[in-house]
Amino acid sequence: MVDENSTFKILIASDIHLGYMESDPIRGNDSVVSFEEILSIAREREVDFILHGGDLFHENKPSRVTLHHCFALLRKYCMGDKPVYFEFLSDQSADFKHCKFPTVNYEDPNLNVSIPMFSIHGNHDDPTGPGNLCSLDLLHTSGLINYFGKATSLDKVQISPILLQKGETKIALYGLGSIRDERLHRMFLKKDVKMLRPKEDQENWFNIFVLHQNRAKHSATNHIPEQFLEDFLDLVIWGHEHECRLNSSAEKVEWNPIQQLYVCQPGSSIATSLSEGEMVPKHVGLLEVNKKDFRMQSIPLKSVRQLYMEDVVLKKHVRPGDANAQRKSEDFCKEKVEALLARAENEHTGSNKQPRQPLIRLRVDYTDFDPFSSQRFGQNFVERVANPKTMIQFHRQKAERASDYKHGQL
Amino acid sequence: MVDENSTFKILIASDIHLGYMESDPIRGNDSVVSFEEILSIAREREVDFILHGGDLFHENKPSRVTLHHCFALLRKYCMGDKPVYFEFLSDQSADFKHCKFPTVNYEDPNLNVSIPMFSIHGNHDDPTGPGNLCSLDLLHTSGLINYFGKATSLDKVQISPILLQKGETKIALYGLGSIRDERLHRMFLKKDVKMLRPKEDQENWFNIFVLHQNRAKHSATNHIPEQFLEDFLDLVIWGHEHECRLNSSAEKVEWNPIQQLYVCQPGSSIATSLSEGEMVPKHVGLLEVNKKDFRMQSIPLKSVRQLYMEDVVLKKHVRPGDANAQRKSEDFCKEKVEALLARAENEHTGSNKQPRQPLIRLRVDYTDFDPFSSQRFGQNFVERVANPKTMIQFHRQKAERASDYKHGQL
Ligand SMILES: [Mn+2]
Ligand SMILES: [Mn+2]
Ligand SMILES: [Mn+2]
Ligand SMILES: [Mn+2]
Repeated sequence: MVDENSTFKILIASDIHLGYMESDPIRGNDSVVSFEEILSIAREREVDFILHGGDLFHENKPSRVTLHHCFALLRKYCMGDKPVYFEFLSDQSADFKHCKFPTVNYEDPNLNVSIPMFSIHGNHDDPTGPGNLCSLDLLHTSGLINYFGKATSLDKVQISPILLQKGETKIALYGLGSIRDERLHRMFLKKDVKMLRPKEDQENWFNIFVLHQNRAKHSATNHIPEQFLEDFLDLVIWGHEHECRLNSSAEKVEWNPIQQLYVCQPGSSIATSLSEGEMVPKHVGLLEVNKKDFRMQSIPLKSVRQLYMEDVVLKKHVRPGDANAQRKSEDFCKEKVEALLARAENEHTGSNKQPRQPLIRLRVDYTDFDPFSSQRFGQNFVERVANPKTMIQFHRQKAERASDYKHGQL
Repeated sequence: MVDENSTFKILIASDIHLGYMESDPIRGNDSVVSFEEILSIAREREVDFILHGGDLFHENKPSRVTLHHCFALLRKYCMGDKPVYFEFLSDQSADFKHCKFPTVNYEDPNLNVSIPMFSIHGNHDDPTGPGNLCSLDLLHTSGLINYFGKATSLDKVQISPILLQKGETKIALYGLGSIRDERLHRMFLKKDVKMLRPKEDQENWFNIFVLHQNRAKHSATNHIPEQFLEDFLDLVIWGHEHECRLNSSAEKVEWNPIQQLYVCQPGSSIATSLSEGEMVPKHVGLLEVNKKDFRMQSIPLKSVRQLYMEDVVLKKHVRPGDANAQRKSEDFCKEKVEALLARAENEHTGSNKQPRQPLIRLRVDYTDFDPFSSQRFGQNFVERVANPKTMIQFHRQKAERASDYKHGQL
């Protein structure tokens, strides 16, 4: 891809969860730090725009300080003199018809936008209450982002794409903000989800769809199977799932041979649960699109707090009948934590934005033992671990473990 | 004042109380309607800037829909191509040192501001919580207003003026956001309130001070007497007091001969209590300043819901011993309300923005009578009155009346 004038450069991110654990004295600022890193990558890489897959905010009603952080960062990084090189071809008043200012921010003559950000809402920041507004409406109305993909009916969804052109490359961007999975699943089955396509030159558009739904099959109907997706789509950006799959293959995206489309699951930029999925190192995507070709690169986030988890089966290391079983169990776990802390130090990115206190989780199978005090245990690691109170998770045997470790609070 | 190029035109408003009674089905939008009228007057009159005296929001944590209204109106009315003709001379990074973006919005090259709005905070929207932020910080950080007058110390206040120049006219604008009256009173007594003055050309500045405190003497120390104010000031804009005094004299301002300064009390743009002070018709001020001269005009707000109050002493109209005393009292009050409704219709501004249902309050002295049901009474006026449930206020005799009718919720 050498023709820069016809190549879109798009930063792909999702699930930034601003305000997550904001009142925690240690972790309170983590989400803001990650967001700032993402914005600084966007600026450094001179992307054409940022595409975000929902859950920008953790709380439906973010605190004032979290909202303020968000306003400040967007104004700092997304406003400026850098020209925007792509054209907006579709009808803004239709694309943003749910907004008080049904316009794209970078074409407002009163705003000097350098990096437009486009976002759908997630389940954490979905519209509610009077006016059916969400936090993204505040950002859109203030001109700091472009909020799209808000379905206005609960029964039928008709998605018109945002049409963008840069040189010879044309992107049709479809968005659908979070809808309860069961409801959307049913709508798909009833063929009540329609994706409109540009009439002219239909084969030459690169079709991107961003959504925020369960991808993992929790039960038969509370996820969206990929086979529901239209096969004219070229690339799906899947928000809500927090596991970063931007490393899943050389292509950084997953090929669905039946639907003939690629799926990119950027994952979250902060761990909102201590689970395996969140342990996968966090990345954002750098998507380049040239005509119908694309390339996805992954860019590691260097400021995200480290997370290490390990499973421990006590009876493999301590004799259950031992007179000092409890002390020995505890000592064994301490050694494990020390090893993880050493690993964390070793794997620290070196960025001064990355905290020095990692998140640590030991999942301890204590079958045939009495549990020790996880609170007292944590006191050994105050100052060194970000979550001293929640380091130890006891369980009796595999079958009893929480059913789905991979999926925490998405 | 003919020299337009040296004449500042400033719209003076205060106590807009956005979000007041927002969940009331009848009155819920009143505050937003008034704000829009104020902004449209500012645009129509082509003022240089808007100066607001605090309590822009009614709630410390405004609802999302109220915040959203505010963002939308400010973006609609205050952004645009109209040039700003006055210069900002003082050090922005000092004037706005409490803000994340310590800059005045109209000089930000990324924002096309046509009407800068300057506001201090009131007691309703004062800074609290993490980061000591208030709603005005959100507006300032998004570039929609200029939030000034935030004192950073609780013991001493040192106010540097914002220095503005238009042609040959130079304004020194001092602001002090709401502080608990007792505390500020004490600080004044201890000479801990300092107002800095520009060193050069000191006599040629027109000195304006905007504050948001009790002006009426509630008790010895919970108000700010005018004699505390420095006599170099030319004009004081006094927020917090809801009674509009912009009609008080031909000059629309009140001369304090001892302090040798003028006081302008713009009042609120919405009645937040059914009191005499709020009954005075609502106006905003149009202040013109040319060198050391000024002229204040008052502009009536045509969209504000009408408020009528009347005192009724039952025993003057109905014989206390009468067998039908209650019915007769009620009938008499109905007549009174009908008369007020007729007056309201007669005095309606004709603006389609002004609601047709006025606020009505009868203060009924029912000495020697049993009260009738004010709820049942109100049912006669549902649809015609904005506050059917709170129309009647019973009291036994003057001495028993709520001590201070003039002062409701400011
Ligand atoms: Mn989610
Ligand atoms: Mn999420
Ligand atoms: Mn007040
Ligand atoms: Mn007030």
